[in-house]
Amino acid sequence: MASSHITLVSHDDGFTLSYQQRTILHHSRQTPCLWAGAGTADIEMFRGNFSIKDRLDEKIALTQAAVSERASGWVIRFTRGETIGATLEVSTDDHDRLVLRLKNDAVAHNRLWLRLAAKPADHIYGCGEQFSYFDLRGKPFPLWTSEQGVGRNKQSHVTWLADCKENAGGDYYWTFFPQPTFVSTQKYYCHVDNSGYMNFDFSAPHYHELAFWENHATLRFECAPTYIELLEKLTALLGRQPELPDWVYDGVTLGIQGGTEVCQQKLDVMRRGGVKVNGIWAQDWSGIRMTSFGKRVMWNWKWNRDLYPQLDTRIAQWKREGVQFLAYINPYVASDRDLCEEAASRGYLTQDAAGKDYHVEFGEFYAGVVDLTNPEAYAWYKEVIKKQLIELGCGGWMADFGEYLPTDTHLYNEVSAEIMHNAWPALWAKCNYEALEETGKLGEVLFFMRAGYTGSQKYSTMMWAGDQNVDWSLDDGLASVIPAALSLAMSGHGLHHSDIGGYTTLFEMKRSKELLLRWCDFSAFTPMMRTHEGNRPGDNWQFDGDAQTIAHFARMTTIFSTLKPYIKQAVAQNARTGLPVMRPLFLHYEDEPRAYTLKYQYLFGRDLLVAPVYEEGRQDWSLWLPDDRWVNVWTGETHGGGDITVDAPLGKPPVFYREGSEWQSLFATLRQINPM
Amino acid sequence: MASSHITLVSHDDGFTLSYQQRTILHHSRQTPCLWAGAGTADIEMFRGNFSIKDRLDEKIALTQAAVSERASGWVIRFTRGETIGATLEVSTDDHDRLVLRLKNDAVAHNRLWLRLAAKPADHIYGCGEQFSYFDLRGKPFPLWTSEQGVGRNKQSHVTWLADCKENAGGDYYWTFFPQPTFVSTQKYYCHVDNSGYMNFDFSAPHYHELAFWENHATLRFECAPTYIELLEKLTALLGRQPELPDWVYDGVTLGIQGGTEVCQQKLDVMRRGGVKVNGIWAQDWSGIRMTSFGKRVMWNWKWNRDLYPQLDTRIAQWKREGVQFLAYINPYVASDRDLCEEAASRGYLTQDAAGKDYHVEFGEFYAGVVDLTNPEAYAWYKEVIKKQLIELGCGGWMADFGEYLPTDTHLYNEVSAEIMHNAWPALWAKCNYEALEETGKLGEVLFFMRAGYTGSQKYSTMMWAGDQNVDWSLDDGLASVIPAALSLAMSGHGLHHSDIGGYTTLFEMKRSKELLLRWCDFSAFTPMMRTHEGNRPGDNWQFDGDAQTIAHFARMTTIFSTLKPYIKQAVAQNARTGLPVMRPLFLHYEDEPRAYTLKYQYLFGRDLLVAPVYEEGRQDWSLWLPDDRWVNVWTGETHGGGDITVDAPLGKPPVFYREGSEWQSLFATLRQINPM
Repeated sequence: MASSHITLVSHDDGFTLSYQQRTILHHSRQTPCLWAGAGTADIEMFRGNFSIKDRLDEKIALTQAAVSERASGWVIRFTRGETIGATLEVSTDDHDRLVLRLKNDAVAHNRLWLRLAAKPADHIYGCGEQFSYFDLRGKPFPLWTSEQGVGRNKQSHVTWLADCKENAGGDYYWTFFPQPTFVSTQKYYCHVDNSGYMNFDFSAPHYHELAFWENHATLRFECAPTYIELLEKLTALLGRQPELPDWVYDGVTLGIQGGTEVCQQKLDVMRRGGVKVNGIWAQDWSGIRMTSFGKRVMWNWKWNRDLYPQLDTRIAQWKREGVQFLAYINPYVASDRDLCEEAASRGYLTQDAAGKDYHVEFGEFYAGVVDLTNPEAYAWYKEVIKKQLIELGCGGWMADFGEYLPTDTHLYNEVSAEIMHNAWPALWAKCNYEALEETGKLGEVLFFMRAGYTGSQKYSTMMWAGDQNVDWSLDDGLASVIPAALSLAMSGHGLHHSDIGGYTTLFEMKRSKELLLRWCDFSAFTPMMRTHEGNRPGDNWQFDGDAQTIAHFARMTTIFSTLKPYIKQAVAQNARTGLPVMRPLFLHYEDEPRAYTLKYQYLFGRDLLVAPVYEEGRQDWSLWLPDDRWVNVWTGETHGGGDITVDAPLGKPPVFYREGSEWQSLFATLRQINPM
Repeated sequence: MASSHITLVSHDDGFTLSYQQRTILHHSRQTPCLWAGAGTADIEMFRGNFSIKDRLDEKIALTQAAVSERASGWVIRFTRGETIGATLEVSTDDHDRLVLRLKNDAVAHNRLWLRLAAKPADHIYGCGEQFSYFDLRGKPFPLWTSEQGVGRNKQSHVTWLADCKENAGGDYYWTFFPQPTFVSTQKYYCHVDNSGYMNFDFSAPHYHELAFWENHATLRFECAPTYIELLEKLTALLGRQPELPDWVYDGVTLGIQGGTEVCQQKLDVMRRGGVKVNGIWAQDWSGIRMTSFGKRVMWNWKWNRDLYPQLDTRIAQWKREGVQFLAYINPYVASDRDLCEEAASRGYLTQDAAGKDYHVEFGEFYAGVVDLTNPEAYAWYKEVIKKQLIELGCGGWMADFGEYLPTDTHLYNEVSAEIMHNAWPALWAKCNYEALEETGKLGEVLFFMRAGYTGSQKYSTMMWAGDQNVDWSLDDGLASVIPAALSLAMSGHGLHHSDIGGYTTLFEMKRSKELLLRWCDFSAFTPMMRTHEGNRPGDNWQFDGDAQTIAHFARMTTIFSTLKPYIKQAVAQNARTGLPVMRPLFLHYEDEPRAYTLKYQYLFGRDLLVAPVYEEGRQDWSLWLPDDRWVNVWTGETHGGGDITVDAPLGKPPVFYREGSEWQSLFATLRQINPM
């Protein structure tokens, strides 16, 4: 037997597999746990928006199960009649995790469905970055990295407009960062090694149905007595993020475009206004391209000396002043520029069925896909990062995209792009990570990503929440960032931030001053503050919109940088044990049922409870406090557990600290920080 | 062998079944034609809008086929391994139709999928009344009677608003009258006897996949050398409509509400304006109920003497003047009124799982469902029709609804309501039909229905297209009525008309004068002219809106009644042979490929070609004429076949007659009818 923690009990017409007293599988002829089948994927992609259907050829319940014991565990032969079958190997890996290995008999069978035992009261968290739901129970979650959608709710007008335009509205499960990993309130995690399309359906009371669009699947499980220990185990499996560079805590990174002098001017204005600025993030450092959509970044990853004259010397000067310069890159190279030409001549681009370079349409321009499965292409692109970004002196960059790999492109490693699609973001993260590691810049230079998958835990140094609408919608506005951070936390990635003010500015949307300021308030209680102008800067209220806005940023960046030692400790803990910086309340309050149902409030580190205001025009805010002694950061008032309503003016988001915290005196100073 | 027309050729690992040289089934291990499986239907209904999902338990390709010959034909045992199987009996019925009878082995297997052989170039027509597509090739068509939806196109704003409100927006396949019957351009029809949920998927190039949510299915096929003969055969199977009462051709039936005197006044105004009026249709004859939605008809099917004083004598008087009085009924009885009380006391209502009477919510009131599977209830309701409607002297009525049978109600005949749901409209039609038949009123009194299914061919004396929006949308406005009539024609029902001006007036919709007049123009070339005020009469332009409108109705009703002998002949032919009154062009022009692709023009009888103007603000109209000699009804100009553009002012819809038609001199008189 593999482990004393695993028991397999056979009964009349089936078996029950348990792991540390949790029932994992329950099989009988009437209620089988495994299906084999076949389908033909019908996947269409337009600018990162996917339409995915399965033309199902068959799905067969494997009702018969024959169990054999081995030294390593058990082998269970599932069959239906004499001709159809699949094998499940039950074993443990070298960390004593329960491992289930599934494999179809028939080559033509390219689908598997496994039903894991569940109890009606179980809650489920994780599956990567989920913007609409935190507790995933009650719904299916297709797992496929893509654009997150514009609106993400079929009941919203914006979603409808975006759907009409280019099927871009999205739905509750659309995400840049899906992951076949979940935590059950039975205190186990389940992680699947695969990367093909999967659908985890948590809607049935007595089982979770996991569908795999592959002919095999490997699942890993671990249990722990607490969620904190469970996350430590999960991140031991998946990897953890290194600590953040020290400069990150020193203020806000200003998203600016337009050239060296525009950056200098805006930096000066903000600093004169008392804003703590730790960096300038300029996505157009490589130049721009005019399209009918507006200005686009030139996807040729070299310093553009026309738009950014003297950037090299200015970077050095800014660095001396404590201001980093952050740039931008993505895994594509514009078809009409020299980097693409170089990649093409070396055979480093992915190909089409005819063996020609594959060029993806991105809106009035095309780009080649650097084939990261080709070790030479990967090494070459890593050198591009080292030479063009690191050598220039960048303190970091946005490593954008990663979720667009077309399923009909052909890759060097000869694995189907349908299987590599989900794996691509982590491969892209690894390329960036190794560029830092090999130049000794880890912990000094920071890149941040929106796309992710298994592996991003180790290789993506910081996540950002992608492209929220510049609005108050629950599914795609400020609010949606909170469940995104918490679900990612439960998937093993503990560092998350967002574009202050949101990004997507389409249709009738315009970013209001109030939204920008509320988002700024929220971001002061996340591990990084960074602004974005949005895709239509002229329609959006900006950080330098008026004196009040600048004063607001001065106040909130002072609060953020005051918290530096506290945040730094939480980040260090995340690096050490995988305990995320933004935490669901139940991590520390396991015994309180309400802690499992809240998706819009969180613990920031151990001792701060944050309930961001995500509705327009509010003067107060209602929230719930778990059983403890809580001090209102702005008033000093103390509360026990329960529901409360507090004043919530701009600049004073509902935040509480634990009485008796080792950081109590630091927290107490927040009240002294000048009002706006 | 059953018939010399059927051949079954076995080959290595399968067989090919042909019928009159058409390949019907092709089976091999690699490309099987039959699947068995199981699923749990998840059906939700709110006010006739259904959400239907299948929780699929399994779908198994039956790869092995063993053929045995019998006196009656063949029996084919389909299996997969030793434990899974289904049987297909191939035989002929007493009309020499090919009959395929499918049956699952396992009781638990409640799903079947059959793939009929197809060729990429085949076109498909029928499946009942289809509003968005006439040629059904390229899409799946779920077959389930329901509301038709408001907007019916996810790209339309109205659809989105209706979806947000109560999931009422609908989609391209939503219809009151689905039917598992189609005609292939291989010149065969296929009809399925079942009534459970089905999905006919015509999207694959080499097969049509028919999905049945039952454990058995019976399919019937016939071939013919022409489509006209094919429809004659199809209607020999399904039944044909009797001829229409003579009065139908004498003018327009005016939809009026508000009481006896309102009817009298509007009738007088219209007649004084020269309008030919054949009837008044008053849906509120049984009284009204005030709700927050507005006035609703009182669903207690008795003459309301308060709202309609002296109705009995007035009906007689109007009849003497050539004006019928038409009323309204549906298969529900309002829970708070005496007919329902009577039905309940006799045990004539359908029940819930607990054995209590089932009451359906219809918007601030409830109604019981008369159990038409209970012979006593059925007879009782037929008597209600005879006594309350026929004895009162009604010339007809709208027999509304029929598509709402909830799937969780319990029926007297103990058949699942999920299976009876689709059959309900035809049962409702039969009840009305027999009331006419038994009182000798067939051909004198007319009822018209929107809901339908197999059987409605025989029992529904006239269809109407249901609830179009009062707009110009392709999927739910004037245009949508044309493919609806044509697809129903190919399904065996040849009598179709629509609410002049449309009905549904919601959200931003208001009926314009232009829409009402264009709809009036169109309706003069259908077998019946009838107006509807719409559900918000005050927002809609009405037939008495101004003098020009009245004059327009005068002109178009004169044209319609001038065509009486011609239309009557076409209706008689429909009654005799099933050749529909409104015909797709390819019925008479089989050799012209373009004739198979047009969904917005039709032949009205043999000799008139009609291309209604269905866009706003048009002065001219483009259409296609098949190879023949065509005379413009309004100008006398002649044309050969091909694309033409003609003037299309209001009151002169693009209509052409065949040169040399036996009706040529009648058609020529249309030019002489006074302009408005």
